[in-house]
Amino acid sequence: MFGITILGNNSAIPAYDRHPTAQVVTLNDQLFLFDCGEGTQMQITRYRIRRSKIHYIFISHLHGDHYFGLIGLLTSMGLLGRTQPLHLFAPAELDTILQLQLKVAATELPFSIAFHPLPEAGVLVDTPKFSVECFPTEHRIPCWGFIVREKLKPRKIDKEKIQQYAVPAAFYERLKNGDDYESRTGEIVRNEWVTYANRSPRSYAYCADTRYHEPIAKYANGVTVMYHEATYLSDLADRARDRFHTTAQQAAAIARLAETKRLLIGHFSSKYDQLDEFLAEAVSVFPNVDLALEGVTYRVGH
Amino acid sequence: MFGITILGNNSAIPAYDRHPTAQVVTLNDQLFLFDCGEGTQMQITRYRIRRSKIHYIFISHLHGDHYFGLIGLLTSMGLLGRTQPLHLFAPAELDTILQLQLKVAATELPFSIAFHPLPEAGVLVDTPKFSVECFPTEHRIPCWGFIVREKLKPRKIDKEKIQQYAVPAAFYERLKNGDDYESRTGEIVRNEWVTYANRSPRSYAYCADTRYHEPIAKYANGVTVMYHEATYLSDLADRARDRFHTTAQQAAAIARLAETKRLLIGHFSSKYDQLDEFLAEAVSVFPNVDLALEGVTYRVGH
Repeated sequence: MFGITILGNNSAIPAYDRHPTAQVVTLNDQLFLFDCGEGTQMQITRYRIRRSKIHYIFISHLHGDHYFGLIGLLTSMGLLGRTQPLHLFAPAELDTILQLQLKVAATELPFSIAFHPLPEAGVLVDTPKFSVECFPTEHRIPCWGFIVREKLKPRKIDKEKIQQYAVPAAFYERLKNGDDYESRTGEIVRNEWVTYANRSPRSYAYCADTRYHEPIAKYANGVTVMYHEATYLSDLADRARDRFHTTAQQAAAIARLAETKRLLIGHFSSKYDQLDEFLAEAVSVFPNVDLALEGVTYRVGH
Repeated sequence: MFGITILGNNSAIPAYDRHPTAQVVTLNDQLFLFDCGEGTQMQITRYRIRRSKIHYIFISHLHGDHYFGLIGLLTSMGLLGRTQPLHLFAPAELDTILQLQLKVAATELPFSIAFHPLPEAGVLVDTPKFSVECFPTEHRIPCWGFIVREKLKPRKIDKEKIQQYAVPAAFYERLKNGDDYESRTGEIVRNEWVTYANRSPRSYAYCADTRYHEPIAKYANGVTVMYHEATYLSDLADRARDRFHTTAQQAAAIARLAETKRLLIGHFSSKYDQLDEFLAEAVSVFPNVDLALEGVTYRVGH
């Protein structure tokens, strides 16, 4: 399972029961939280997200609609008895704010937070099963996008064919990496007899808040799914530019440039009650678009 | 109109669609906000509170469930174009937190915030129409309760009787204060001919978070309505004491000691799904109790 669950799809002011930005990415047994606007902990409860499974939180920038819910979520995790450590990747100043808030409340969390200030760009997490990297966007204050990539062994074992050969299970990982097997007696099992090429690994780019900024398409080139903000419709392209935001059409143009398979758009301005126009506008530029709707989980590929 | 609208009635962790603490007190044309847990700005929208009418905010203490929603509310007020100044009464450290949060967002609010650190006890606001005072409660960190008192002129003009005398309208305020009127020609209109005693002024005590603490009954003696926390039921009296909270029965005992007319109880622990027992327990000690339910406005007297 690789999917994105939207917890908040609105820009700065909550409206029409749309909430400030937050989304949970599920990759097999891992949950990643991207941004954490006010009310995220309530949305997590509403949509039955297993908060104990969240071990990584990424905050794109320090505008309130992207992080005001974080301290509440952390505090509640503590009250609920969490002991597992949590990795928090965020702009450096957030650490000072959180520490101050914990201090004035005389609160000591029962779990540790490994705070990682965001570098300009690069890999943040690298495990055998996935990686997460960050890249800069163009916003009024420093802001980062993130890419989650699953990692797959290049080859998969053919369960039927492998039964014809006496390859010990301990060697399976090396088979997946493409090695041939040689038995003690010198018998060779060629890799291509018992494996086939794995599918290509999937990836998701969360592009946070940004002006229309073509370098994003380069960073996120070829991702399976891209989320891009679309705060305004095209008639407000000037306002979008002034406020360091993007129109639905521009978001679609970035998706096309990036050659992604699927685009999600969100971060809608509170001035819009209805969202249909966002979809119509984006589809005219890039075919495979969805509105990022709260409570919905969007699958990444396959 | 003098009333209390409950926006959040739950303790630390939001649960069962109950929200962390916040309440709006309406006194004629004034709105006062007492505490501002996470999600308060959404609750303000949900219950159609006119946020532009809020000129005074009081924060009882710096546990997150009482203030994490404040920065979001202030930011949204700014985005909505507020220019009227706002008075904020809170523990001193809150100013540092708010300033830091505004700074990292490069946000300059379009209205000014007059920050008033809370004194140990005493009058915070004193106008011809109302006053607000604070008093200490007994909590794990410094915590304050607040009392709003309406101010009334001692006498009211009898609209029928006044028509029999030629008293200029400009003198009415002095009549309300009990003065006799003497005309240019030396004719006396005795105060008691044209006025009658006003009703006694109403008052509301918001007692915030606290252990069972009898001095509260002294500070809030004789208030028309008292809100007192009731985090637990009596069987958890030990836990209440350990965690600096109160049971429903203890809250009722304080109300009885204070000789208030009406008690509201709230700040229910997330361990309770149903609240009926809180009412039953409190009523056994003090008859006129209501559960503080979200979205409900409770009138103060008359």
